[in-house]
Amino acid sequence: MATETVILAYSGGLDTSCILKWLLDKQYEVICVLADVGQKEDFTAAEKKALKIGAKKVIVADVKQSFVEDYIWPAVQMGLVYEERYLLGTSLARPCISVALIEVAREYGAKYLAHGATGKGNDQVRFELCAYALKPDLKIIAPWRDVKFCCQFQGRQDLIAYAQQHGIEVSAKPATPWSTDANILHISYESGILEDPNTVAPENLYQMTVDPMTRAPCNPIRLVIQFDRGLPSSVEDLAGRRVYTKPLEMLDFLNRLGGFYGIGRIDIVENRFVGLKSRGVYETPGGTILFAAHQDLEVFALDREVLRTKQVLRDRMADYLAEQRVSGKVTVELAPGYSRAVARKASNNVGALYNEQLVSMDVHGGYVPQDAGGFIAINAVRIREHVRAFGAYEVPTKKN
Amino acid sequence: MATETVILAYSGGLDTSCILKWLLDKQYEVICVLADVGQKEDFTAAEKKALKIGAKKVIVADVKQSFVEDYIWPAVQMGLVYEERYLLGTSLARPCISVALIEVAREYGAKYLAHGATGKGNDQVRFELCAYALKPDLKIIAPWRDVKFCCQFQGRQDLIAYAQQHGIEVSAKPATPWSTDANILHISYESGILEDPNTVAPENLYQMTVDPMTRAPCNPIRLVIQFDRGLPSSVEDLAGRRVYTKPLEMLDFLNRLGGFYGIGRIDIVENRFVGLKSRGVYETPGGTILFAAHQDLEVFALDREVLRTKQVLRDRMADYLAEQRVSGKVTVELAPGYSRAVARKASNNVGALYNEQLVSMDVHGGYVPQDAGGFIAINAVRIREHVRAFGAYEVPTKKN
Amino acid sequence: MATETVILAYSGGLDTSCILKWLLDKQYEVICVLADVGQKEDFTAAEKKALKIGAKKVIVADVKQSFVEDYIWPAVQMGLVYEERYLLGTSLARPCISVALIEVAREYGAKYLAHGATGKGNDQVRFELCAYALKPDLKIIAPWRDVKFCCQFQGRQDLIAYAQQHGIEVSAKPATPWSTDANILHISYESGILEDPNTVAPENLYQMTVDPMTRAPCNPIRLVIQFDRGLPSSVEDLAGRRVYTKPLEMLDFLNRLGGFYGIGRIDIVENRFVGLKSRGVYETPGGTILFAAHQDLEVFALDREVLRTKQVLRDRMADYLAEQRVSGKVTVELAPGYSRAVARKASNNVGALYNEQLVSMDVHGGYVPQDAGGFIAINAVRIREHVRAFGAYEVPTKKN
Amino acid sequence: MATETVILAYSGGLDTSCILKWLLDKQYEVICVLADVGQKEDFTAAEKKALKIGAKKVIVADVKQSFVEDYIWPAVQMGLVYEERYLLGTSLARPCISVALIEVAREYGAKYLAHGATGKGNDQVRFELCAYALKPDLKIIAPWRDVKFCCQFQGRQDLIAYAQQHGIEVSAKPATPWSTDANILHISYESGILEDPNTVAPENLYQMTVDPMTRAPCNPIRLVIQFDRGLPSSVEDLAGRRVYTKPLEMLDFLNRLGGFYGIGRIDIVENRFVGLKSRGVYETPGGTILFAAHQDLEVFALDREVLRTKQVLRDRMADYLAEQRVSGKVTVELAPGYSRAVARKASNNVGALYNEQLVSMDVHGGYVPQDAGGFIAINAVRIREHVRAFGAYEVPTKKN
Repeated sequence: MATETVILAYSGGLDTSCILKWLLDKQYEVICVLADVGQKEDFTAAEKKALKIGAKKVIVADVKQSFVEDYIWPAVQMGLVYEERYLLGTSLARPCISVALIEVAREYGAKYLAHGATGKGNDQVRFELCAYALKPDLKIIAPWRDVKFCCQFQGRQDLIAYAQQHGIEVSAKPATPWSTDANILHISYESGILEDPNTVAPENLYQMTVDPMTRAPCNPIRLVIQFDRGLPSSVEDLAGRRVYTKPLEMLDFLNRLGGFYGIGRIDIVENRFVGLKSRGVYETPGGTILFAAHQDLEVFALDREVLRTKQVLRDRMADYLAEQRVSGKVTVELAPGYSRAVARKASNNVGALYNEQLVSMDVHGGYVPQDAGGFIAINAVRIREHVRAFGAYEVPTKKN
Repeated sequence: MATETVILAYSGGLDTSCILKWLLDKQYEVICVLADVGQKEDFTAAEKKALKIGAKKVIVADVKQSFVEDYIWPAVQMGLVYEERYLLGTSLARPCISVALIEVAREYGAKYLAHGATGKGNDQVRFELCAYALKPDLKIIAPWRDVKFCCQFQGRQDLIAYAQQHGIEVSAKPATPWSTDANILHISYESGILEDPNTVAPENLYQMTVDPMTRAPCNPIRLVIQFDRGLPSSVEDLAGRRVYTKPLEMLDFLNRLGGFYGIGRIDIVENRFVGLKSRGVYETPGGTILFAAHQDLEVFALDREVLRTKQVLRDRMADYLAEQRVSGKVTVELAPGYSRAVARKASNNVGALYNEQLVSMDVHGGYVPQDAGGFIAINAVRIREHVRAFGAYEVPTKKN
Repeated sequence: MATETVILAYSGGLDTSCILKWLLDKQYEVICVLADVGQKEDFTAAEKKALKIGAKKVIVADVKQSFVEDYIWPAVQMGLVYEERYLLGTSLARPCISVALIEVAREYGAKYLAHGATGKGNDQVRFELCAYALKPDLKIIAPWRDVKFCCQFQGRQDLIAYAQQHGIEVSAKPATPWSTDANILHISYESGILEDPNTVAPENLYQMTVDPMTRAPCNPIRLVIQFDRGLPSSVEDLAGRRVYTKPLEMLDFLNRLGGFYGIGRIDIVENRFVGLKSRGVYETPGGTILFAAHQDLEVFALDREVLRTKQVLRDRMADYLAEQRVSGKVTVELAPGYSRAVARKASNNVGALYNEQLVSMDVHGGYVPQDAGGFIAINAVRIREHVRAFGAYEVPTKKN
Repeated sequence: MATETVILAYSGGLDTSCILKWLLDKQYEVICVLADVGQKEDFTAAEKKALKIGAKKVIVADVKQSFVEDYIWPAVQMGLVYEERYLLGTSLARPCISVALIEVAREYGAKYLAHGATGKGNDQVRFELCAYALKPDLKIIAPWRDVKFCCQFQGRQDLIAYAQQHGIEVSAKPATPWSTDANILHISYESGILEDPNTVAPENLYQMTVDPMTRAPCNPIRLVIQFDRGLPSSVEDLAGRRVYTKPLEMLDFLNRLGGFYGIGRIDIVENRFVGLKSRGVYETPGGTILFAAHQDLEVFALDREVLRTKQVLRDRMADYLAEQRVSGKVTVELAPGYSRAVARKASNNVGALYNEQLVSMDVHGGYVPQDAGGFIAINAVRIREHVRAFGAYEVPTKKN
């Protein structure tokens, strides 16, 4: 059998370095992709490290401009905010990174995509749904959902031991007691000591923003932010007479200034898509400034009812041009007093989402029934939590 | 003073004929517009009648094709239905008629628009909001809201007496004990004996549909209706091998066939925009067939979540391209720990809906404070009804 | 004719003092009601002033406790916020004040209620809808919608001249170039120089909060706020070891502390119910602290989908026990292939909102058709503004 | 190891009879539960059959009354309808059956629950989420998701061969080319020849309703249905002078009468929770009559805005008393100009849904990461179908 190629979403850190080695041990050829979304990282060192471990190739994809223009700017325009507080810094980055991974997979004809996202988080969902949408024939390798992998690596110590055993360089710097995800829009912190929601996050955690109380300047500053059709088009510093008009520069400037003033820190508990509640601390200096400015202009500019409608749509990322797909024939039966559809057919073979093969009870049609067990189990996480917190639901009985 | 020209939405009936005379007595020049939206009417007779009364001109505007293609077809595409049952036959016709009225007003430079809609119904709102949107300088004359007119004409007998006195022809046919509004999409019946919601509507009321129980055929028939991008594109009669592809012909054919089978009768109580509940009986043969067929194909063709989103949007007729209007500048103040908007300006003079003149407490700016009394009173109709039915609201008191 | 009694919502200021005199000149007996919702006011002086002008009686109603417990606390529990930023300080106070006014009207058998709210704002709507809900037979006197009153008093100078002419005391303090509304939850500022949305509000405007930049302390402070079933139940100052458990004391403490830190200032443009956009500046120190704390706990405590549902409900203040009212009979007709309702009757005479008298085209039934003109005109404010800003709507034409 | 007891949702049919034998072969003790929700079934024969195969016990649970009063009646009250057409006949029955299963599991201390629902349908989700909610320690056995079971039984022929081999009685009656699910509310038909959405369902499929065209009476009949607080309280046959007031008898009567008139047939394509579209044919005679009657009375009785709110809630089955759970402490930090929550704690140990163990990256806490793979795969069904129908999504690129 020919050796199969795996595209690995590589970060240079301990986890994905061990995964790289683990994949090589399974006889895969591995191409590492490091997507640069603005995180502060020594990409050259990471590249060397991967090559030394045995990667066939390491590709550093600078997607910062696309991240700002195709993801962050539209999110500002749409006013996207999750559960009223989270500005979606990681959620927006994952699809952007996925596009870079898929492009490499296409270029090198890879059949596999591996990532180091955990089995309890949203990142696995983001990476994999993107892959299914963009290149559905790609097979996913998710080591943190692999039973054997999870047995072998039960904690950070196992990873360190494995790394040392296989000559993988381990950072001398002691790990922070929390995990971090950084990009040009935000840095998020979670896990470790932050898992206790009643513990205040330590001041030394923050990297993009100063402590607003003790280290920010004592005088306010005013900016003028211009929007065009809802997209930021220029930022003007009233004090220094600087004007920025390129999206990446605008965001970078607002990040620096916002960080200087300690703007954009939030500490929240949020609901994950996989049904868990988690606690996260975020700093999003430039995004926070942009979001508030856009919100103000929007209420100012839009009709009241248009605004209400937009707020409803905000949480629903659907294709508004949906009717383009409603093409086909319906057989209608007329009888005294009523008519009803009795049969229907889409305009062409691929023209509708109904799939006779898929729904058939007699053939599989690409649907794996075993997946439903996991689907139900994850959907049940919220129910189990409810039972844990408040006791089992009562059996409904006849009302009096 | 030069004589002013009024455009009168004329029907040929008793009400608008008396209104025509009443306007002439007030020294207006009156141009009557009869919009043909498919109602069965002797337009020539109506024209003669209006000219005889003294209209300066009578214009019969055949807007049937526009009504089907620009109003009914998009409504089928959008799946519009009010309070889950009413297919909006009158609601869709009024804007179409209004466009015809406004075009005549433009052509003849008229400053006034008169209509015979009552002060308790939705039609007055439809006509006037259309006028405000299309030609906001047009002044509205609504006799049924005019105190003197209402005093003079307290019932049908007063109108008949006035007509006879002024030589206006009164139909020999006795009036039905209900009122009727007809167009190519539906006929609606309300008022009179129908006002008692616990009285069954008499069988002889229906004009578009036969009694499905006693007069419809005993065998069903099947049709194939084709849609393209959600719009009906052809209707094929499986039995007779006829195919219709022109919108007006399609609807006409479906109306005849649906009427033959007694399809599309509903008898409902509904909530009017002006706060009243009213009882209406409708027959919408072709529309009912189209709506059901489109609904079936839509669920068949669209992704589940797109469908959910579309259902939400259905009731909100807003401009989905709203962000095109969000252009302007925001002045943002950064302070330690937060930023906030402190001033904002739209991109050009007319670029935002904020109106300093309008909101000012010192100048009127086109807003007539006295209107607010009526606005509040009509908004209070629902509250007053609640009080009438269930007693006055209780004064909130401290919870225990 | 016996002299009629008017209950006047009196503030002690120039407007309502002139209105008091104007009512007396019309031969009404006037009872002035000053509702104490926490505004800083010399109630004794105001009382003396009203009596001197000629009020028959002056009643100072201390409704602070009810305002906090029956209005503000439930609003915190519900997470009420308007257009994502405004905490509804004035909107919540008006119904509370209205209850006090109505109670006096009941006690003294008054048939009239007068208020000094302008014809362009939301306050008139709040006062009058409350009156209609609580005592629907009360007649409203709204001088600022009275044509003669508006002619007589075209600006502040007219009011001052009238006051001086009639011996009404005018405050020596020059008026601020904006108007103010204060209560225990917030102070709002609007009108005057604030009407230009691109002008930054002056620092000397704020009364409840210090400038956070220059006058707030340089060290943060932590509080523990306890909630019980979503209602604030205690506030504990970690530094000073003080614990507050009475609602009024809790809010008062949070206001002082929040004000000391400069918390809760917002500067927004908002959409009024009557269709205008307006600019308001608000300071809501305690409310801002409570709202943020409640929001955090809510996401922490509630299931994800329950939270989503609650967010939808937040904007809809309806009676969730609605089905209690769905009692009655429906006559259903069964025919081959379908059934449909053909008549219906509520369980008792007052048991449904349908009103045959009201909807009838033959009798008025308490509905004043003339009100519809104002209703339509105010609903058209948004349309007229759209036309002003973007030009008249285009007449729809056949799509290609 | 002691023998473990399994509660099997048994129907008496081929599938669950084979599953019973298969479980016995795996050394389980099996208690069969047949829930009587109104399906026409020879329960005695089914009981004998199960005992003969080797069931330790067979329990026939008559839950018809609870099904009508605790599930169907509230659904009528709430106006529940799925995708605007399906009255949820099967969806409502599954939780009712689940309660019966769980009660037996509790009584006999069983650790396992087995069902014969397929891996592609919604029934598996309904059974299992109910079990998780009511008795979360119950382990599920879903043979149709078991890889070995699915290999062994690839079609109906394998089941028949297995049955004959093990002396399990196979019905002499040839199977219909579709599958059927019946209860007192409806009968549903799907699979087999119905999977082609463009094939009209054969007339001989229907069991509850006659062909309205050829076999229904030629004269309509009228009923009066009375509701009390939204729940049906009596049905009166105007012709025969019969009055029914017991829920079960009311529904039974309406089913017979509705069936006699051929009322309540629908033929639809719908979206399953697991992401597939499927075609179903349903007959719901009594339910259709009740739903239409309730809808009519509701619009008649409720205030317009209350009605709108209820329609929104209808699709959201959440606990409206949610705030009862928002009890706890929030630590709030005040800093100049803003306050923010920095820590929070629920009122008691079990008082909130946040679960530190569950969210922790270091311990499993009851969450099985492997389940996430299935969860993502099932969530991706809709995406894969979209790609199949319309091609892969395009990679977003910079807008021009």
